[in-house]
Amino acid sequence: MKKQRGLLIVLSGPSGVGKGTVRKELFSQADTNYEYSISMTTRNPREGEVDGVDYFFKTRTEFETLIEDGGLLEHAEFVGNYYGTPLAYVNETLDAGRDVFLEIEVQGARQIREKAPDALFIFLAPPSLSELKARLVGRGTETDDIIAKRIATAEAELEMMSLYDYVVENDEVENACDKINAIIKAEHCRRERVEKIYLSMLKGE
Amino acid sequence: MKKQRGLLIVLSGPSGVGKGTVRKELFSQADTNYEYSISMTTRNPREGEVDGVDYFFKTRTEFETLIEDGGLLEHAEFVGNYYGTPLAYVNETLDAGRDVFLEIEVQGARQIREKAPDALFIFLAPPSLSELKARLVGRGTETDDIIAKRIATAEAELEMMSLYDYVVENDEVENACDKINAIIKAEHCRRERVEKIYLSMLKGE
Repeated sequence: MKKQRGLLIVLSGPSGVGKGTVRKELFSQADTNYEYSISMTTRNPREGEVDGVDYFFKTRTEFETLIEDGGLLEHAEFVGNYYGTPLAYVNETLDAGRDVFLEIEVQGARQIREKAPDALFIFLAPPSLSELKARLVGRGTETDDIIAKRIATAEAELEMMSLYDYVVENDEVENACDKINAIIKAEHCRRERVEKIYLSMLKGE
Repeated sequence: MKKQRGLLIVLSGPSGVGKGTVRKELFSQADTNYEYSISMTTRNPREGEVDGVDYFFKTRTEFETLIEDGGLLEHAEFVGNYYGTPLAYVNETLDAGRDVFLEIEVQGARQIREKAPDALFIFLAPPSLSELKARLVGRGTETDDIIAKRIATAEAELEMMSLYDYVVENDEVENACDKINAIIKAEHCRRERVEKIYLSMLKGE
């Protein structure tokens, strides 16, 4: 039987929403059965960060050579530094039938949406979005200016999430992780996916 | 804010696959937060079955009057008896923003797919499907006739599941329930669904 290709899982969301915290919590759980793809960056390691664990730390020249060689699934420049996903690890892991989990910036997620449309895109949303109504009504003391700015921010976040399959609100890390795990489990039960497995069995692959 | 309509969840699958057992296990769990829609039937109660708990037991005349009055979301005749879903309960519960769970025959599920295409359709598959490969290869002692019959059965099951969103294999009741709960949780995070909530907030509904 032909091995089914793994699922490419992309977690992204606005800067500061807590993507890293959620990802670390997911991978600290004993029953996590997907592989984390370590990102590559040109930024300096922060205290306690380990090369090959938190990131692969590279120079700008090394990074730019990889871009030219097509060695990155996606890359983005963010606050003056490059961030990217090494392509080889992702492909090898998916080909071996294991799911790969990426935690990346929205700019990079957009590139993957184009290259790998059957990946699973999860948008981590700030809890502020669900509190929007309270914020819009406010305590009646906000100026029209402030209300207008809040609406604009919410509209920008809505615009951003429009490329994703799922939206998970990061109200509490535990809740967010539960939802992400449920989404991954559900995705493996999607009819199109299961059908493919059965069809390849019938064909004797 | 306008109340979001609940989700209509339809669990179905081939006769004898264990739909009732899985449904009972789901509703015996403490944290189940969807409502079970009790089916209506003209068949006689089996020992221990209670009217209004297991089924609403009706005469053929009562049932046929309901069909004529458009009081059923779906109905099917199965081994000489009618089975159906009372429409009023489903609509009231969904309008109140609560999810409704139906466990019905494939014939009825097909009717709902047409009437309520945004419902969530889960196909409970026999574990035999995943064991198909082993059964096809067999122990080398099966006749071509037997192999052909197995392929035909598998193809019929594949054909049946093509209308569903998800396929859950009933290998063990516990596993099947876990997957169904994950699917329902994930479905609430689907971007289209979350987007609607945010948009109605922005409109001040």
